[in-house]
Amino acid sequence: MKIDLKEIDVIAFDADDTLWDNEIYFRESEREFCALLGSYACEEEVMRVLYEVEEANIPLFGYGVKSFAMSMLESAGRLTRESAPYPLVKAVMGIARGQLMRPVTIIDGVQEVLESLYGRCRLALATKGDITDQRRKVRLSGLEHYFDHVEIMNEKREEDYARMVKVLRCRADRLLMVGNSLRSDILPVLGLGGYGIHIPYHTTWMHEVVEGDVAHGRFCELNSIRELVGLFNI
Amino acid sequence: MKIDLKEIDVIAFDADDTLWDNEIYFRESEREFCALLGSYACEEEVMRVLYEVEEANIPLFGYGVKSFAMSMLESAGRLTRESAPYPLVKAVMGIARGQLMRPVTIIDGVQEVLESLYGRCRLALATKGDITDQRRKVRLSGLEHYFDHVEIMNEKREEDYARMVKVLRCRADRLLMVGNSLRSDILPVLGLGGYGIHIPYHTTWMHEVVEGDVAHGRFCELNSIRELVGLFNI
Repeated sequence: MKIDLKEIDVIAFDADDTLWDNEIYFRESEREFCALLGSYACEEEVMRVLYEVEEANIPLFGYGVKSFAMSMLESAGRLTRESAPYPLVKAVMGIARGQLMRPVTIIDGVQEVLESLYGRCRLALATKGDITDQRRKVRLSGLEHYFDHVEIMNEKREEDYARMVKVLRCRADRLLMVGNSLRSDILPVLGLGGYGIHIPYHTTWMHEVVEGDVAHGRFCELNSIRELVGLFNI
Repeated sequence: MKIDLKEIDVIAFDADDTLWDNEIYFRESEREFCALLGSYACEEEVMRVLYEVEEANIPLFGYGVKSFAMSMLESAGRLTRESAPYPLVKAVMGIARGQLMRPVTIIDGVQEVLESLYGRCRLALATKGDITDQRRKVRLSGLEHYFDHVEIMNEKREEDYARMVKVLRCRADRLLMVGNSLRSDILPVLGLGGYGIHIPYHTTWMHEVVEGDVAHGRFCELNSIRELVGLFNI
């Protein structure tokens, strides 16, 4: 696949697990949570309940670490039959607090790719989740100056991308989105007529998993973000 | 004060306690929280600890109901000397959950004012807080179609409004902001050279309170949003 940059108004990048590590921190928090609940239930049962509670809470709480914290607290109640002592509750809140203070680790190759594309095309960052935490990560990333626009969305559905292209004054069929989640980054953008470049991350939250292959003239999958620049005529 | 609409690119409205009720729901939740903790501490002590914890948590957690929930849980720990039983924890989470499901009650006069201004000037909604909850309220308000743009910010400081006017492609000195909080809605916009129209709400969160009077050529205080249309030459 080769794309002429004259056909593209904006290249938008997902942030979590595309520009910087994120999912590994959730995995670490989950391991800590399982350890805390170890005397009440096995890891498999803790994870089953946690994922069920998380899924049920997304419409009300949305994405991000605070929402995850609320779901861990609710799961702790279920798994202990409402007998969790306050120190356990406090430890769960400590897991979330710790996750909100993690360093922002830029994925290998990101800096060079942004440097190569900067000035050749408008660049945007398009992420979902908790606004306070995402702002923190954007600030700490040291990458903000590459982006014309940072969009923090509640969900990443077609209607949310439609809102973003309106803000960017960009035609949807001239948007190219780069991200690790087929569900959130690729399929809705293809649905609007844009380009979707999928770069899988080594671990994916169950909620984001999509079954099956994508076959589409404006879709392509890369092994590393380093391969992105090679797609364009530069 | 009279303002020529030809001098204004965008009229931006704060949402919570400017377009719809919000602070009264926090007051109700606080009363429920005080009642839950009634056997551990008096209302005054509960509120003192809660406000202290909330203020300390803003940089990490940001604004909104989930952040408030985390602060209530932490305060419950402090006030019970870490002996809060899980059912109390669950009840606190229930307060937050209930608050996230409140109806959106439009403030008297808002609909008519938006109807009068619609089509005469670009209108924007500028709010801070939890993105999931704010999106819910925008949707339920039935007012979204009046607005060219909805901006959900993490903080409402000068730099955040500077980012918004860039998105709006509007000159900062041609932005008019309408809101109930001097600290968040008015002072930063005046600082950027824009207009600030203050409409106090009957109750204000301590965090938003600013001491002293504002005297500024581009500032004005109204008793009701109904008076807004009279400011303009229409």
